Amino acid sequence: MEAKYGPVPIRDVRITGGFWKSWQETAARSTVPAVYSQFEKTGRFKALAHGWREGEPDKPHIYYDSDVAKWIEGAAYSLHICPDAGVEAKIEALIDLVEAGMSADGYFNSYFQSVEPHMRWTRRADHELYCAGHFMEAAVAYYEATGRRRFLDLMRRSGDHIRAVFAESGSAAFETPGHEEIELALLRMWRCDGDSKWLGLARHFIDRRGKNPADLRFVHFSPLFTQDHAPVAEQASAEGHAVRFAYLFAAATELALATGDEALAEACRRVWRDAVDKKMYVTGGVGSMARGEAFGPAYYLPNFEAYAETCASIAMAFFARRLSLLEPRGEYADVFELQMYNGALAGISLDGKGFFYENPLCARPSDQELIDISRGQVRPARRAEVFDTSCCPPNILRFILSLGGCMYDVRQAPRGTAASAAGPASPIASEGRPLGALGAPGAPNTLDALYVHHYAESVADVALAGQAVRLRQETSYPWNGAIALSVSAQKPFTATIALRAPAWCGSPSLNYASAEKDGYLHVTREWHDGDRILLELPMDVAELEANPLVLQDAGRAALKRGPLVYCAEEADNGPRLHDLLLGSETRYETAWMPNLLGGVNAIKFGALRRKPFDGLYRKWAPEYEPATATAVPYYAWANRGPGEMAVWLMKEARRRAE
Amino acid sequence: MEAKYGPVPIRDVRITGGFWKSWQETAARSTVPAVYSQFEKTGRFKALAHGWREGEPDKPHIYYDSDVAKWIEGAAYSLHICPDAGVEAKIEALIDLVEAGMSADGYFNSYFQSVEPHMRWTRRADHELYCAGHFMEAAVAYYEATGRRRFLDLMRRSGDHIRAVFAESGSAAFETPGHEEIELALLRMWRCDGDSKWLGLARHFIDRRGKNPADLRFVHFSPLFTQDHAPVAEQASAEGHAVRFAYLFAAATELALATGDEALAEACRRVWRDAVDKKMYVTGGVGSMARGEAFGPAYYLPNFEAYAETCASIAMAFFARRLSLLEPRGEYADVFELQMYNGALAGISLDGKGFFYENPLCARPSDQELIDISRGQVRPARRAEVFDTSCCPPNILRFILSLGGCMYDVRQAPRGTAASAAGPASPIASEGRPLGALGAPGAPNTLDALYVHHYAESVADVALAGQAVRLRQETSYPWNGAIALSVSAQKPFTATIALRAPAWCGSPSLNYASAEKDGYLHVTREWHDGDRILLELPMDVAELEANPLVLQDAGRAALKRGPLVYCAEEADNGPRLHDLLLGSETRYETAWMPNLLGGVNAIKFGALRRKPFDGLYRKWAPEYEPATATAVPYYAWANRGPGEMAVWLMKEARRRAE
Repeated sequence: MEAKYGPVPIRDVRITGGFWKSWQETAARSTVPAVYSQFEKTGRFKALAHGWREGEPDKPHIYYDSDVAKWIEGAAYSLHICPDAGVEAKIEALIDLVEAGMSADGYFNSYFQSVEPHMRWTRRADHELYCAGHFMEAAVAYYEATGRRRFLDLMRRSGDHIRAVFAESGSAAFETPGHEEIELALLRMWRCDGDSKWLGLARHFIDRRGKNPADLRFVHFSPLFTQDHAPVAEQASAEGHAVRFAYLFAAATELALATGDEALAEACRRVWRDAVDKKMYVTGGVGSMARGEAFGPAYYLPNFEAYAETCASIAMAFFARRLSLLEPRGEYADVFELQMYNGALAGISLDGKGFFYENPLCARPSDQELIDISRGQVRPARRAEVFDTSCCPPNILRFILSLGGCMYDVRQAPRGTAASAAGPASPIASEGRPLGALGAPGAPNTLDALYVHHYAESVADVALAGQAVRLRQETSYPWNGAIALSVSAQKPFTATIALRAPAWCGSPSLNYASAEKDGYLHVTREWHDGDRILLELPMDVAELEANPLVLQDAGRAALKRGPLVYCAEEADNGPRLHDLLLGSETRYETAWMPNLLGGVNAIKFGALRRKPFDGLYRKWAPEYEPATATAVPYYAWANRGPGEMAVWLMKEARRRAE
Repeated sequence: MEAKYGPVPIRDVRITGGFWKSWQETAARSTVPAVYSQFEKTGRFKALAHGWREGEPDKPHIYYDSDVAKWIEGAAYSLHICPDAGVEAKIEALIDLVEAGMSADGYFNSYFQSVEPHMRWTRRADHELYCAGHFMEAAVAYYEATGRRRFLDLMRRSGDHIRAVFAESGSAAFETPGHEEIELALLRMWRCDGDSKWLGLARHFIDRRGKNPADLRFVHFSPLFTQDHAPVAEQASAEGHAVRFAYLFAAATELALATGDEALAEACRRVWRDAVDKKMYVTGGVGSMARGEAFGPAYYLPNFEAYAETCASIAMAFFARRLSLLEPRGEYADVFELQMYNGALAGISLDGKGFFYENPLCARPSDQELIDISRGQVRPARRAEVFDTSCCPPNILRFILSLGGCMYDVRQAPRGTAASAAGPASPIASEGRPLGALGAPGAPNTLDALYVHHYAESVADVALAGQAVRLRQETSYPWNGAIALSVSAQKPFTATIALRAPAWCGSPSLNYASAEKDGYLHVTREWHDGDRILLELPMDVAELEANPLVLQDAGRAALKRGPLVYCAEEADNGPRLHDLLLGSETRYETAWMPNLLGGVNAIKFGALRRKPFDGLYRKWAPEYEPATATAVPYYAWANRGPGEMAVWLMKEARRRAE
C-alpha cells in the first residue's frame, strides 16, 4: 500500500469524542436543520427553483446560491459523521433544482436567471463566479461523501461554461471575479478529478488579477477592496475585504504549491506576515473595519468596534491550511487552531442555531444599538438565526464538520539520522500534480512523515511506509494538554511522526526522542503496533500583551490558556468589565465547570474594581475594591442573554514592589 | 444713572490685552477676511444674489445663507474691536443683496428662491427657519455695532412673514423648525427692539415642538435627532443632534427666564445635567457620534472616534450662558469657560484661517483616512480652510469676537448682612420683560450685584447702584490665576461684586471678606474709587479621572491646569502617545514657552514609554524606558502638521509603594 501524500481526507479521520465530537454533533443535528429551515423560510430554495416572480417578496439576492451551496457542503460533511437519509434527500432535491435550472450552456445562477437574465457576466461585483465556486465545492464534498457524481458533473459543466467565457472567448464584461472563491473551488475540482483544465482556469483567474484596468470599473471603495491594486504575486500586504483576501491567497498558496511558482509562494508568505503580525486580533479575527468588511491600517484593532467577520476567520484558517501544505511550519497550524477555537467558533452559539456575523472583543449592549445605527447598519447585540447576507452560518457549519480533514498530512521527509535532520522536502513540486509537493512514492532516500497538526479524541487511518496505519488520539484537549497517540500497524515501519508543539506552549514534553523544527516535534523511528506517544502540552493561564502600536490594547492584558482565548462576561462578573483591573501579581486558578456553557474550564482570579462616583470627571483618586472574577472561553460568550464582554482587561502596568 | 440689569453688553466691555485680545485680533484681522474669501470662492455670495443658474457649479446649498449670516455677525462684532470701513462696506454690500432679493412678503432664502421657488416652507429638514434665524442674529449684531437699522428692518419684515406663515395662517407644511436656531434669534430681536411679538413667536416654536406628529415626517434617523420625542418642557435628557439640542435649550432657558415658566426652566436644568454629567468630553465637546452629529448613549465618549463638533461646543456655551442668566451658578460659567478655552477654541488654528469641524481627543493620522472612509465621510487629519457644510468657521469667529458680552451680568441681590446672605433674586420674573428676571430698578431691600463670570485683561463700564462704574481687570489668565480688579467710580457705592471661583480651583483666595455661594465669591461692601480686588486662583496641574462608566478612559488620566485641558502631541513626544504611561508619582512642571504655539505654558513631566517588540502579541512582559514628556494646551493642537495627539494618557492605576 503506497502512501498517499497530502492531507489525510475527512473520510479517514473520525473524531470520536470530546470537544469536537460534541461540536460536530451539534452542527450535524442542530445547525444542519436550523440553517436549512431559515433558508427555506427566507426563499433561498424557491430562488434556486427560479420560482420568484417580480412583485413577490423574498426577491433572490445575488449571493443566495452561495448560501445554499455552503449548506449543501456542510450537510455533505455531516454524512461522514452521522449518515442521515433525510439530509441526503434534501440535498438531492436541491441538486434536482440545479439540474432543472441549468442552461444548456452550463450556466446556473438563481439571481441572474430569475431577475436579470440579460445581465449575465456583466457585473463583476455581483458574485456570479463566487456562487458558482461554492456550488463546485459543494459538489466535490457531496461526491466525496456519497460517491454520487450527478452534482459534480453538473458543476463540471458549469466549469466548462466559465472556462469558455473567461479563458477562451473572453465574452464576459470582466476578467476576474469581484469576490474571490472560484479559484479555491477550481483547485478543489482539480484535486478531485485530476483534470488540469481546472488548475489552468484557477491559474488564469489568479494570474490575471490586478492586471486588467477594466476590472476596476467594478470596484467598490478602492482597488484594495478586491485585491486589485497589484498583480497577486506582487502584493505585499493584507488589504481590503478580509474574506476575499484570504480566499484569494488560500487559492494562490495552493496554486504555488501545485505549480512550483516560488514568486507566488513568496507573495503568500508576505501577505500572511502582514496579516498575522499587524492586523489580526488576539482571537484570530481579521478585518477590523465594518466599512468594506476590510483590513484596517496596520495595528488598527479596535475591540468595541471590531468587525472581524466569522467568515474572515474561517477564510484565514483556509489560508493557514494551504500554507501548512506548502510548508509545515507550526505557525500556520497555530493560526488555524486560533481560528477553530476562537475567531471562527465564536460565530456560532452553543446550541448551533444562533450566529454572529461580526465578532467584537468588547461589548456593552446598551451602547451597541446606537453605535450600529451610527454606522448605518444594525449589528445585533445578540446572535441571530439568519442574516440577509447569511454567509457566516453555513460557513461555520462546513468549517466545523470538515475539521477532520485538517488534522493530518502525509509528506515525504529526507531520511537522516533519527530526528535530527527531519524536515519536509522542498515545498515546490512540478507543475500540475495535485499536492504532489508533499511527496512522490518511492522517492529515494526519503521517509514518510505524518504531520499531526491538531489534537482531538479521534481515530485516523493513513497509508504510511507502505501499509495501513491507524493512529488513535486520546485527549481532553483543549481543556487539558495531555495527548496519547497510539499506533496500530500490522508490521513495524519506519517513519517520522511530527507533532505540532504550539507556540503558546513553553515546555512541551514527549516520551520519545524528538527533534524540534519549525514548530513540530519530529519523532523518527521504527514504529511497532501498540506504540504509544505521550505528548504533554502544559497549559498555564497566560496574560498576553499587545504590541505597543495597538492603540486600544494599551495597558490591557488578554487571558489565554492553551489554544483558548478567554473573556470576562457580565453574567459572571457584573458590569464595567472594561474597568476591571488585574493586579500586578494576579493568581489564576482553573476550574472545570460542567454546568457552565456546556462545560468549560473557567479561569478564576482576584481583580480590582474601581469604585463608582458621581459626575463625569474628578481629580485623579481612583479607589478600588477587591473583586472575584471569572473568565470563560471567548467562543462561548453571548450564550446567556445580552451583557457586557471584554477580552482585553486593564492590567497594572508595573509590579508594585519592584 | 439706573442699573441696567442683565448682561453687560459687548460694546461696554473692551478686552485690552492678553490671551483674548490676541485671539480677537486674530479673528478680526485674519479670520474675518479668510472666511469671507472662502465664502466668495465657493459661491455663497453669488447664491445670496440669486445669481446661480441650473447647470452652473457651486449650486447653492440649503444652509449657505446661515454661513453668510454668521460671517456678518462675526464681522459686526469685529467692528467693536477694530473698526474697519472695508469690512463695513462688505457687510453693506451683502445687505444690499438681501434687500434686493427679499420678496415683497418678506421671504428671503438663497436656495429656495434660486433653486426651488415653489418649495418654500415645505421641507422641515431644509434649514429655512435656521437660515432666517441667523440673518436675524446678524442684523441685531450689526445694528448694535453700527446703529444702522436697514438690515434689522429687513429681518423684522422676515420675522413678520414667518410669524404670518407659522403662527397665524399655519400655511407651512410643518410647524416647528427641523434645525433649531430661529428661537434664539427671535428672542434676540425681542431683546433688541422690545417687541413682544418676537417673544411670542419664539414661545410658539418652543411650545409646539414635540407635539405635532406631522412634523415627524421630516425627521432623520429618529425623533430624538431633532428633539421631537417629547414636548420641550417634558424632555429629560440630552438627545440627538448636539447643536440643535443646545440651540433649542439655550432658547428655552431664555424663554423660561422671560416668561417665568418654571416647568420649562426645570426641563432645561434636567437636560443640562444629563449632558454635563453623562455625555460631555473633558474638553467640553458634546455629540460623540458622527452619524447624526449626535449625543451617544450615556458615557459613550470614544476619544479616537469622537465627533464633538466645534459648533456643538459653541452651542453648549450659549446654553450655559443663558443658564447663568437664569441663575448664577458657577457651574454654568465653568462649562462656558471649558468651551472657550478647549472644546470650541480647538476648532480654529492659531493663525485663524484653519478649522476643525470635528474635535477628537486622540488622533493618529495614519489611521485617520481609512477610518473616515469607513464612516462614509472624510475627516481630514488636518485643519481645513472651508467645508461644504461650513457652519463651524463663522461660528467660532462670532463666538470669539462676542466673548466680551459674556463676561459680566448685573443682577439684583437681596440686601442682607454683608456677604453672608448674598445671592440672586428669584430667577423667574414676570412675563415679557427682557431679562427682567435679573432685577427691577428701585426694588426695595435689594442691592445691585455685578457677576464676574470670566477673567481677562479688560475694561468694563457698568451702571451699578445708580452710577457709572468702571471695572478694570489685570491678569495673565489663563496662564496664571492672579487677577486684580480695580474699581473706578465718582462716588462710593454699596453693591455686591460676585467673582466666579471655578470648580477646578481648590483654594481661591481674595483680599476682601466674601461669602461663597453656588460657585461665586460674593463681596458686598461700600466700594470706593481705586478699590482693588485681588483674586488668586492657584493653578496646579491636575490629573483628572473619568467616571468608571466611560469605557475609553479606563486607566487613563487627562491633564488640566486652570481652565486649560492639555494634550500630548507627536511633535513634542514622538509617536505612540496612547501608550505613554504616567507613573503613580509623576511630577509636573510648568514652563512658559514664548515661541511654542504662539506662547503657551507647557507642562513638562517624566513618563514611561513601553518598549516596542516584534509581532502582535506576546506573554505579558512590558518593559519601559523613561521618557521626558511635554503636554500643550488642547486648543493649540494640530498647528504643526499632522501628528498623533492624545488627551487621555495611560496612568499607573495604583501607587507603587502603598
